[in-house]
Amino acid sequence: MRGPELDRLIGLLARLPGLGPRSARRVALKLLLDPSGRMLPLAAALSDAAHAVRACANCGNLDSTDPCAICADPDRDVGLVCVVEGVGDLWAIERAGAHRGQYHILGGTLSALAGTGPEDLTIAHLLERVATGAVREVILALGATVDGAATAHYLADRLDASGVAVTRVAQGVPMGGALEVLDDGTLTAALRARRPLPR
Amino acid sequence: MRGPELDRLIGLLARLPGLGPRSARRVALKLLLDPSGRMLPLAAALSDAAHAVRACANCGNLDSTDPCAICADPDRDVGLVCVVEGVGDLWAIERAGAHRGQYHILGGTLSALAGTGPEDLTIAHLLERVATGAVREVILALGATVDGAATAHYLADRLDASGVAVTRVAQGVPMGGALEVLDDGTLTAALRARRPLPR
Repeated sequence: MRGPELDRLIGLLARLPGLGPRSARRVALKLLLDPSGRMLPLAAALSDAAHAVRACANCGNLDSTDPCAICADPDRDVGLVCVVEGVGDLWAIERAGAHRGQYHILGGTLSALAGTGPEDLTIAHLLERVATGAVREVILALGATVDGAATAHYLADRLDASGVAVTRVAQGVPMGGALEVLDDGTLTAALRARRPLPR
Repeated sequence: MRGPELDRLIGLLARLPGLGPRSARRVALKLLLDPSGRMLPLAAALSDAAHAVRACANCGNLDSTDPCAICADPDRDVGLVCVVEGVGDLWAIERAGAHRGQYHILGGTLSALAGTGPEDLTIAHLLERVATGAVREVILALGATVDGAATAHYLADRLDASGVAVTRVAQGVPMGGALEVLDDGTLTAALRARRPLPR
Protein backbone atom coordinates (compact mmCIF):
# COMPACT_ATOMS: atom_id res chain seq x y z
CA MET A 1 0.00 0.00 0.00
CA ARG A 2 3.03 2.29 0.38
CA GLY A 3 5.07 1.75 -2.75
CA PRO A 4 8.40 -0.12 -2.86
CA GLU A 5 10.62 2.92 -2.14
CA LEU A 6 8.90 3.68 1.14
CA ASP A 7 8.72 0.02 2.20
CA ARG A 8 12.44 -0.39 1.53
CA LEU A 9 13.32 2.76 3.48
CA ILE A 10 11.23 1.65 6.47
CA GLY A 11 12.79 -1.83 6.33
CA LEU A 12 16.33 -0.39 6.45
CA LEU A 13 15.47 2.11 9.20
CA ALA A 14 13.90 -0.68 11.30
CA ARG A 15 17.24 -2.51 11.39
CA LEU A 16 19.08 0.39 13.04
CA PRO A 17 19.97 -0.09 16.73
CA GLY A 18 17.22 1.21 19.01
CA LEU A 19 14.64 1.42 16.23
CA GLY A 20 11.97 -1.15 15.44
CA PRO A 21 9.25 -1.29 12.78
CA ARG A 22 7.08 1.16 14.70
CA SER A 23 9.75 3.84 15.22
CA ALA A 24 11.00 3.29 11.66
CA ARG A 25 7.56 4.18 10.33
CA ARG A 26 7.46 7.28 12.53
CA VAL A 27 10.93 8.38 11.40
CA ALA A 28 10.05 7.80 7.72
CA LEU A 29 6.83 9.83 8.01
CA LYS A 30 8.64 12.66 9.77
CA LEU A 31 11.33 12.76 7.07
CA LEU A 32 8.73 12.66 4.27
CA LEU A 33 7.08 15.80 5.64
CA ASP A 34 10.17 17.73 4.51
CA PRO A 35 11.98 15.67 1.83
CA SER A 36 14.28 18.38 0.49
CA GLY A 37 15.00 19.95 3.89
CA ARG A 38 15.62 16.83 5.97
CA MET A 39 15.59 13.64 3.90
CA LEU A 40 18.00 14.54 1.11
CA PRO A 41 20.52 16.15 3.53
CA LEU A 42 20.47 12.95 5.60
CA ALA A 43 20.97 10.85 2.45
CA ALA A 44 23.91 13.07 1.46
CA ALA A 45 25.39 12.95 4.98
CA LEU A 46 25.24 9.14 5.02
CA SER A 47 26.86 8.92 1.62
CA ASP A 48 29.54 11.52 2.47
CA ALA A 49 30.40 9.79 5.74
CA ALA A 50 30.50 6.35 4.11
CA HIS A 51 33.02 7.63 1.56
CA ALA A 52 35.08 9.94 3.79
CA VAL A 53 35.34 8.18 7.14
CA ARG A 54 37.93 5.45 7.60
CA ALA A 55 39.78 3.79 10.47
CA CYS A 56 43.03 5.49 11.54
CA ALA A 57 45.95 3.18 10.67
CA ASN A 58 47.67 4.10 13.94
CA CYS A 59 44.92 3.81 16.57
CA GLY A 60 41.76 2.56 14.82
CA ASN A 61 39.71 5.71 15.53
CA LEU A 62 37.15 6.68 12.86
CA ASP A 63 37.88 10.00 11.17
CA SER A 64 37.95 11.53 7.71
CA THR A 65 41.72 11.89 7.91
CA ASP A 66 44.34 9.15 8.38
CA PRO A 67 46.10 9.46 10.79
CA CYS A 68 43.09 10.73 12.73
CA ALA A 69 42.93 14.22 14.26
CA ILE A 70 43.96 12.84 17.67
CA CYS A 71 47.04 10.95 16.38
CA ALA A 72 47.99 13.96 14.24
CA ASP A 73 47.70 16.42 17.15
CA PRO A 74 51.26 17.40 18.22
CA ASP A 75 49.95 18.53 21.62
CA ARG A 76 48.88 15.02 22.61
CA ASP A 77 51.23 12.80 24.60
CA VAL A 78 52.46 9.97 22.31
CA GLY A 79 53.86 8.19 25.37
CA LEU A 80 50.44 7.72 26.98
CA VAL A 81 48.17 5.24 25.14
CA CYS A 82 44.63 4.55 26.35
CA VAL A 83 43.33 1.16 25.19
CA VAL A 84 39.55 1.04 24.66
CA GLU A 85 37.19 -1.58 23.25
CA GLY A 86 35.55 0.60 20.61
CA VAL A 87 35.31 4.05 19.06
CA GLY A 88 32.24 4.82 21.22
CA ASP A 89 34.46 4.54 24.32
CA LEU A 90 37.00 6.92 22.79
CA TRP A 91 34.20 9.43 22.07
CA ALA A 92 33.01 9.20 25.70
CA ILE A 93 36.52 9.83 27.11
CA GLU A 94 37.06 12.72 24.68
CA ARG A 95 33.72 14.28 25.68
CA ALA A 96 34.87 14.13 29.30
CA GLY A 97 38.22 15.68 28.28
CA ALA A 98 39.75 13.07 30.57
CA HIS A 99 42.77 11.96 28.52
CA ARG A 100 45.60 14.00 26.99
CA GLY A 101 47.40 11.10 25.28
CA GLN A 102 46.60 8.87 22.32
CA TYR A 103 44.28 5.86 21.97
CA HIS A 104 44.29 2.28 20.77
CA ILE A 105 40.98 0.77 19.61
CA LEU A 106 41.01 -2.92 20.50
CA GLY A 107 37.94 -3.86 18.47
CA GLY A 108 36.21 -5.69 21.34
CA THR A 109 37.26 -7.96 24.18
CA LEU A 110 38.45 -11.54 24.34
CA SER A 111 35.39 -13.77 24.72
CA ALA A 112 35.26 -17.54 24.96
CA LEU A 113 31.50 -17.40 24.49
CA ALA A 114 31.59 -15.27 21.35
CA GLY A 115 34.72 -17.08 20.11
CA THR A 116 36.80 -13.87 20.06
CA GLY A 117 40.52 -14.69 20.34
CA PRO A 118 43.60 -12.43 20.48
CA GLU A 119 43.98 -12.60 16.68
CA ASP A 120 40.49 -11.04 16.28
CA LEU A 121 41.58 -7.91 18.17
CA THR A 122 44.28 -5.34 17.38
CA ILE A 123 46.59 -6.75 20.08
CA ALA A 124 49.51 -7.48 17.70
CA HIS A 125 49.36 -3.89 16.48
CA LEU A 126 49.33 -2.58 20.07
CA LEU A 127 52.50 -4.59 20.81
CA GLU A 128 54.10 -3.11 17.67
CA ARG A 129 53.22 0.42 18.81
CA VAL A 130 54.76 -0.29 22.21
CA ALA A 131 57.85 -1.90 20.61
CA THR A 132 58.71 1.39 18.88
CA GLY A 133 59.79 2.62 22.32
CA ALA A 134 57.71 5.80 22.15
CA VAL A 135 55.08 4.51 24.60
CA ARG A 136 55.66 5.10 28.33
CA GLU A 137 52.35 3.94 29.81
CA VAL A 138 49.42 1.86 28.55
CA ILE A 139 46.12 2.69 30.30
CA LEU A 140 43.57 -0.12 29.99
CA ALA A 141 40.10 1.47 29.87
CA LEU A 142 38.05 -1.67 29.23
CA GLY A 143 34.54 -2.41 30.48
CA ALA A 144 34.14 -3.67 34.05
CA THR A 145 32.82 -7.01 32.77
CA VAL A 146 34.20 -10.57 33.05
CA ASP A 147 35.45 -10.39 29.46
CA GLY A 148 36.86 -6.90 30.01
CA ALA A 149 38.79 -8.01 33.09
CA ALA A 150 40.10 -11.15 31.34
CA THR A 151 41.24 -9.04 28.39
CA ALA A 152 42.97 -6.58 30.72
CA HIS A 153 44.89 -9.41 32.40
CA TYR A 154 45.84 -10.94 29.05
CA LEU A 155 47.11 -7.56 27.79
CA ALA A 156 49.08 -6.93 30.99
CA ASP A 157 50.79 -10.35 30.50
CA ARG A 158 51.62 -9.65 26.87
CA LEU A 159 52.93 -6.16 27.66
CA ASP A 160 54.98 -7.33 30.63
CA ALA A 161 58.20 -8.02 28.66
CA SER A 162 58.19 -4.56 27.07
CA GLY A 163 58.82 -2.89 30.43
CA VAL A 164 56.10 -0.31 29.73
CA ALA A 165 53.87 0.76 32.65
CA VAL A 166 50.42 -0.86 32.46
CA THR A 167 47.57 0.69 34.46
CA ARG A 168 43.83 0.32 34.39
CA VAL A 169 41.01 2.77 35.12
CA ALA A 170 39.71 2.74 38.70
CA GLN A 171 36.49 0.96 39.66
CA GLY A 172 34.24 2.33 42.35
CA VAL A 173 31.18 4.40 43.19
CA PRO A 174 30.09 6.42 40.12
CA MET A 175 29.80 10.20 40.51
CA GLY A 176 26.38 11.07 41.94
CA GLY A 177 25.72 7.42 42.80
CA ALA A 178 23.95 6.46 46.02
CA LEU A 179 25.58 3.52 47.82
CA GLU A 180 22.30 1.76 48.60
CA VAL A 181 21.43 1.23 44.94
CA LEU A 182 24.87 -0.06 43.87
CA ASP A 183 25.43 -3.71 43.00
CA ASP A 184 27.60 -5.97 45.20
CA GLY A 185 30.50 -6.09 42.73
CA THR A 186 30.85 -2.31 42.58
CA LEU A 187 30.60 -1.98 46.38
CA THR A 188 33.26 -4.66 46.89
CA ALA A 189 35.57 -3.05 44.33
CA ALA A 190 35.05 0.41 45.87
CA LEU A 191 35.83 -0.82 49.40
CA ARG A 192 38.90 -2.77 48.28
CA ALA A 193 40.26 0.23 46.38
CA ARG A 194 39.70 2.66 49.29
CA ARG A 195 42.24 5.45 49.60
CA PRO A 196 43.30 7.77 52.43
CA LEU A 197 41.60 11.16 52.38
CA PRO A 198 44.00 14.02 51.64
CA ARG A 199 44.34 16.31 54.74
CA MET B 1 37.80 14.94 16.93
CA ARG B 2 35.50 13.07 14.50
CA GLY B 3 35.77 14.96 11.24
CA PRO B 4 33.02 17.19 9.79
CA GLU B 5 31.25 14.40 7.82
CA LEU B 6 30.68 12.27 10.90
CA ASP B 7 29.66 15.23 13.07
CA ARG B 8 27.15 16.34 10.45
CA LEU B 9 25.70 12.83 10.14
CA ILE B 10 25.32 12.48 13.91
CA GLY B 11 23.73 15.93 14.12
CA LEU B 12 21.12 15.03 11.50
CA LEU B 13 20.41 11.62 13.04
CA ALA B 14 19.98 13.21 16.49
CA ARG B 15 17.08 15.30 15.15
CA LEU B 16 15.03 12.26 14.12
CA PRO B 17 12.00 11.49 16.34
CA GLY B 18 12.88 9.08 19.12
CA LEU B 19 16.64 9.56 18.71
CA GLY B 20 18.85 11.89 20.74
CA PRO B 21 22.58 12.63 20.61
CA ARG B 22 23.41 9.36 22.37
CA SER B 23 21.38 7.06 20.12
CA ALA B 24 22.51 9.05 17.07
CA ARG B 25 26.14 8.26 17.94
CA ARG B 26 25.28 4.57 18.40
CA VAL B 27 23.43 4.44 15.07
CA ALA B 28 26.30 6.20 13.27
CA LEU B 29 28.89 3.81 14.71
CA LYS B 30 26.77 0.78 13.78
CA LEU B 31 26.38 2.04 10.21
CA LEU B 32 30.10 2.81 9.90
CA LEU B 33 30.96 -0.81 10.72
CA ASP B 34 29.50 -1.76 7.33
CA PRO B 35 29.45 1.36 5.10
CA SER B 36 28.86 -0.37 1.76
CA GLY B 37 26.41 -2.95 3.11
CA ARG B 38 24.24 -0.75 5.33
CA MET B 39 25.11 2.93 5.06
CA LEU B 40 25.09 3.45 1.30
CA PRO B 41 21.85 1.41 0.84
CA LEU B 42 20.19 3.60 3.49
CA ALA B 43 21.46 6.75 1.75
CA ALA B 44 20.07 5.46 -1.57
CA ALA B 45 16.74 4.47 0.02
CA LEU B 46 16.34 7.94 1.54
CA SER B 47 17.14 9.62 -1.76
CA ASP B 48 14.86 7.27 -3.77
CA ALA B 49 11.96 7.77 -1.37
CA ALA B 50 12.44 11.56 -1.32
CA HIS B 51 12.22 11.63 -5.12
CA ALA B 52 9.54 8.98 -5.68
CA VAL B 53 7.05 9.43 -2.85
CA ARG B 54 4.41 12.14 -3.11
CA ALA B 55 0.99 12.89 -1.65
CA CYS B 56 -1.98 11.40 -3.51
CA ALA B 57 -4.00 14.26 -5.05
CA ASN B 58 -7.24 12.48 -4.18
CA CYS B 59 -6.76 11.40 -0.54
CA GLY B 60 -3.38 12.74 0.63
CA ASN B 61 -1.83 9.29 1.23
CA LEU B 62 1.93 9.00 0.59
CA ASP B 63 2.82 6.65 -2.26
CA SER B 64 5.09 6.50 -5.29
CA THR B 65 2.07 6.62 -7.61
CA ASP B 66 -0.59 9.36 -7.87
CA PRO B 67 -3.42 8.45 -7.38
CA CYS B 68 -2.11 6.16 -4.65
CA ALA B 69 -2.50 2.37 -4.75
CA ILE B 70 -5.56 2.56 -2.50
CA CYS B 71 -7.40 5.18 -4.57
CA ALA B 72 -6.44 3.32 -7.78
CA ASP B 73 -7.72 -0.03 -6.47
CA PRO B 74 -11.04 -0.80 -8.27
CA ASP B 75 -11.97 -3.28 -5.50
CA ARG B 76 -12.20 -0.55 -2.87
CA ASP B 77 -15.51 1.13 -2.12
CA VAL B 78 -15.40 4.73 -3.43
CA GLY B 79 -18.59 5.47 -1.49
CA LEU B 80 -16.98 4.82 1.90
CA VAL B 81 -14.38 7.45 2.91
CA CYS B 82 -12.47 7.14 6.18
CA VAL B 83 -11.15 10.50 7.44
CA VAL B 84 -7.88 10.27 9.43
CA GLU B 85 -5.52 12.87 10.87
CA GLY B 86 -2.35 11.58 9.22
CA VAL B 87 -0.78 8.92 7.02
CA GLY B 88 0.36 6.99 10.11
CA ASP B 89 -3.30 6.45 11.03
CA LEU B 90 -4.03 5.17 7.50
CA TRP B 91 -1.11 2.73 7.80
CA ALA B 92 -2.45 1.45 11.14
CA ILE B 93 -5.97 0.85 9.77
CA GLU B 94 -4.53 -0.85 6.65
CA ARG B 95 -2.36 -3.13 8.83
CA ALA B 96 -5.50 -4.12 10.70
CA GLY B 97 -7.29 -4.71 7.37
CA ALA B 98 -10.21 -2.93 9.00
CA HIS B 99 -11.45 -0.74 6.12
CA ARG B 100 -12.45 -1.64 2.55
CA GLY B 101 -13.16 1.89 1.33
CA GLN B 102 -10.97 4.90 0.58
CA TYR B 103 -9.34 7.48 2.87
CA HIS B 104 -9.03 11.20 3.34
CA ILE B 105 -5.95 12.57 5.11
CA LEU B 106 -6.98 15.64 7.09
CA GLY B 107 -3.43 16.80 7.91
CA GLY B 108 -4.07 17.18 11.64
CA THR B 109 -6.94 18.41 13.80
CA LEU B 110 -8.41 21.80 14.51
CA SER B 111 -6.56 23.29 17.48
CA ALA B 112 -7.07 26.66 19.10
CA LEU B 113 -3.83 26.16 21.05
CA ALA B 114 -1.70 25.36 17.97
CA GLY B 115 -3.59 27.89 15.87
CA THR B 116 -4.77 25.26 13.37
CA GLY B 117 -7.93 26.44 11.62
CA PRO B 118 -10.14 24.76 8.99
CA GLU B 119 -8.11 26.33 6.16
CA ASP B 120 -4.94 24.56 7.43
CA LEU B 121 -6.59 21.15 6.95
CA THR B 122 -7.89 19.45 3.79
CA ILE B 123 -11.52 20.10 4.78
CA ALA B 124 -12.41 22.05 1.61
CA HIS B 125 -11.10 19.16 -0.49
CA LEU B 126 -13.13 16.64 1.56
CA LEU B 127 -16.29 18.70 0.89
CA GLU B 128 -15.41 18.69 -2.84
CA ARG B 129 -15.01 14.90 -2.81
CA VAL B 130 -18.39 14.55 -1.11
CA ALA B 131 -20.01 17.04 -3.52
CA THR B 132 -19.21 14.76 -6.49
CA GLY B 133 -22.03 12.55 -5.21
CA ALA B 134 -19.89 9.38 -5.19
CA VAL B 135 -19.52 9.30 -1.41
CA ARG B 136 -22.21 7.48 0.61
CA GLU B 137 -20.69 7.54 4.09
CA VAL B 138 -17.88 9.49 5.78
CA ILE B 139 -16.28 7.64 8.72
CA LEU B 140 -14.46 9.98 11.12
CA ALA B 141 -11.48 8.06 12.57
CA LEU B 142 -9.88 10.89 14.56
CA GLY B 143 -8.02 10.61 17.84
CA ALA B 144 -10.08 10.45 21.04
CA THR B 145 -8.69 13.79 22.19
CA VAL B 146 -10.35 17.16 22.85
CA ASP B 147 -9.09 18.47 19.50
CA GLY B 148 -10.09 15.24 17.74
CA ALA B 149 -13.63 15.44 19.12
CA ALA B 150 -13.96 19.15 18.26
CA THR B 151 -12.77 18.44 14.72
CA ALA B 152 -15.26 15.58 14.37
CA HIS B 153 -18.13 17.84 15.42
CA TYR B 154 -16.97 20.58 13.06
CA LEU B 155 -16.77 18.11 10.15
CA ALA B 156 -20.20 16.66 10.95
CA ASP B 157 -21.64 20.21 10.83
CA ARG B 158 -19.97 21.03 7.52
CA LEU B 159 -21.06 17.70 5.98
CA ASP B 160 -24.62 18.02 7.24
CA ALA B 161 -26.00 19.81 4.15
CA SER B 162 -24.58 17.21 1.76
CA GLY B 163 -26.93 14.51 3.09
CA VAL B 164 -24.06 12.02 3.31
CA ALA B 165 -24.01 9.66 6.33
CA VAL B 166 -21.39 10.73 8.91
CA THR B 167 -20.22 8.17 11.48
CA ARG B 168 -17.31 8.03 13.87
CA VAL B 169 -15.29 5.10 15.20
CA ALA B 170 -16.49 3.64 18.49
CA GLN B 171 -14.81 4.51 21.78
CA GLY B 172 -14.55 1.93 24.55
CA VAL B 173 -12.43 -0.69 26.26
CA PRO B 174 -9.44 -1.59 24.03
CA MET B 175 -8.99 -5.26 23.11
CA GLY B 176 -7.09 -7.05 25.87
CA GLY B 177 -7.61 -4.11 28.22
CA ALA B 178 -8.35 -4.64 31.93
CA LEU B 179 -11.07 -2.35 33.26
CA GLU B 180 -9.21 -1.48 36.46
CA VAL B 181 -6.33 0.22 34.64
CA LEU B 182 -8.50 2.28 32.28
CA ASP B 183 -8.87 6.04 32.67
CA ASP B 184 -12.16 7.63 33.71
CA GLY B 185 -12.89 9.06 30.24
CA THR B 186 -12.63 5.67 28.55
CA LEU B 187 -14.74 3.97 31.21
CA THR B 188 -17.44 6.64 30.93
CA ALA B 189 -17.45 6.41 27.13
CA ALA B 190 -17.58 2.60 27.24
CA LEU B 191 -20.51 2.57 29.67
CA ARG B 192 -22.44 5.23 27.74
CA ALA B 193 -21.94 3.35 24.46
CA ARG B 194 -23.06 -0.01 25.92
CA ARG B 195 -24.87 -2.30 23.49
CA PRO B 196 -27.16 -5.29 23.97
CA LEU B 197 -25.40 -8.63 23.72
CA PRO B 198 -26.43 -10.64 20.68
CA ARG B 199 -28.39 -13.80 21.77
